[in-house]
Amino acid sequence: MALDRLIEAIVRTQNPTVAGLDPKLDYVPEYIKEKAFNKYGETLKGAAKAILEYNKGLIDALCEIVPAIKPQAAYYEMYGTAGMKTLYKTQEYAKSKGMIVITDGKRNDIGTTMEAYAAAHLGKVKIGSEEIAPFPGDALTVNGYLGSDGINPLIKVCKENDKGIFVLVKTSNPSSGELQDLLIDGKPVYEHMGAMCEKWGEELPGKYGYSGVGAVVGATYPEQIEALRKLLPHTFFLIPGYGAQGGGAKDIAAAFDENGLGGIVNSSRGIMCAYKKEGCDEHFYAEAAFREAMRMKEDIMGYVKEIRLP
Amino acid sequence: MALDRLIEAIVRTQNPTVAGLDPKLDYVPEYIKEKAFNKYGETLKGAAKAILEYNKGLIDALCEIVPAIKPQAAYYEMYGTAGMKTLYKTQEYAKSKGMIVITDGKRNDIGTTMEAYAAAHLGKVKIGSEEIAPFPGDALTVNGYLGSDGINPLIKVCKENDKGIFVLVKTSNPSSGELQDLLIDGKPVYEHMGAMCEKWGEELPGKYGYSGVGAVVGATYPEQIEALRKLLPHTFFLIPGYGAQGGGAKDIAAAFDENGLGGIVNSSRGIMCAYKKEGCDEHFYAEAAFREAMRMKEDIMGYVKEIRLP
Repeated sequence: MALDRLIEAIVRTQNPTVAGLDPKLDYVPEYIKEKAFNKYGETLKGAAKAILEYNKGLIDALCEIVPAIKPQAAYYEMYGTAGMKTLYKTQEYAKSKGMIVITDGKRNDIGTTMEAYAAAHLGKVKIGSEEIAPFPGDALTVNGYLGSDGINPLIKVCKENDKGIFVLVKTSNPSSGELQDLLIDGKPVYEHMGAMCEKWGEELPGKYGYSGVGAVVGATYPEQIEALRKLLPHTFFLIPGYGAQGGGAKDIAAAFDENGLGGIVNSSRGIMCAYKKEGCDEHFYAEAAFREAMRMKEDIMGYVKEIRLP
Repeated sequence: MALDRLIEAIVRTQNPTVAGLDPKLDYVPEYIKEKAFNKYGETLKGAAKAILEYNKGLIDALCEIVPAIKPQAAYYEMYGTAGMKTLYKTQEYAKSKGMIVITDGKRNDIGTTMEAYAAAHLGKVKIGSEEIAPFPGDALTVNGYLGSDGINPLIKVCKENDKGIFVLVKTSNPSSGELQDLLIDGKPVYEHMGAMCEKWGEELPGKYGYSGVGAVVGATYPEQIEALRKLLPHTFFLIPGYGAQGGGAKDIAAAFDENGLGGIVNSSRGIMCAYKKEGCDEHFYAEAAFREAMRMKEDIMGYVKEIRLP
């Protein structure tokens, strides 16, 4: 199951972090853009090709020390069909380098439509006598607002294809509380959603105590992380909001169990734009990303200490 | 604003319905698939090309009598990059025939990521000195579970580009109540979400009393439709669940105001697979779709009577 493989990769690298690949064109070094625009013009294809080269450089730099990437689908969709091709090629390249791929799509729908999303990102489609995987990610972020009708089709596809999902529970943004914090029978909406993750996860048990149904829980809400870790003992956390959004390593510490497992912390801009923050030559953007990834690992491991299989 | 244009198209056609283009490969007539597979093989491209031809036939048949199409992104994503190209070409073709395009993507995220989705589906992206629209839809369905941080970037893009959104409020599926019906201060979650739509809509007022922030409300919940119409006087409803999912014209009647405005009813499978239900020669799938669209229009207009601008 995909989250077992993720856990093994975290233990191997001793690094519970994931590099978010949310490639705004502004992040891409000028020399890469120039090359792509000269070849393909200032077009969607030109932008998509530039992003792909940028991503490959990041993956090359990070693949030995970071267990996973999390490409955010929006930043690929915004370059249309060409952008979706870059999403595919980024996922494929990261997998060829041994990394786990979490596609951040926050997809949600019901019944046969959710089956279609599941096939797109976690499964295969049947075309005549052929079966083809449209996108090769290992896990997908999803929104559970539509209830079990939206999640059950995913569970089935995850079982058949060795994949996993992360359900939005308590997101990292300032306004997440407008709906998620409202109280139902004395409990906030996000706790209800978390309880549903535990229930859905029973269908997709893992080797190390965590199911294939994870939860997205923001680094910006440390009290909620602590409460949810206790309430959801079988639910692995994907934790955005570290760094640029304001969450620190200390805020996240409660996500981890006695084995140092239980969560993976995302950083996107911090890693992708490390060369800008450092002020180094843009040709060394990948080296700067490596340095920032090491800094982040040490920052978080200062609280987690050691990660081991149970 | 896009929902004003939608309302005008509804009045012109005297038809408050939208054809959902959710093209499962099973729906596509064999002769179209054969032709595409012979040319492109049993590949993602072969499937995507077959679906595009099928869609074009449906659009040709429907464009005079149905005001809008609603392509469901999942059924295009499931054929990978080639599928996304078919989504683009379907949207472009429908617009060239004067139809309004509602992209059913249920996208959701926060801040700059939501800006990226907004640019992808409702706006433009800047590449060097060029500005390009990645996908040409008029409106997008979105999930508001993340709160205002997820909706505000959309509002901005809608203002700048004459577009609209539909927010999931009460979805048509059987398990929608698991979260959406839970009571907060004596009011169900979907009423809170509906109230947020009214508030968000103030930023995007329309000429005919309805804002550019619509709501998705399922035909399968007639009592909720009636309650929500009263509570949300400026919110236009996109109503799935008619036909195959069990909702009838009578169930939907309360969605409409005294001018016959206030809602648009979706049918996907009913229209797309009308030729199968009729048992007619598959070469006449488009004519069968036309007949079913006319039947549906008459069914609903039996309750709505006349539609006029206020």
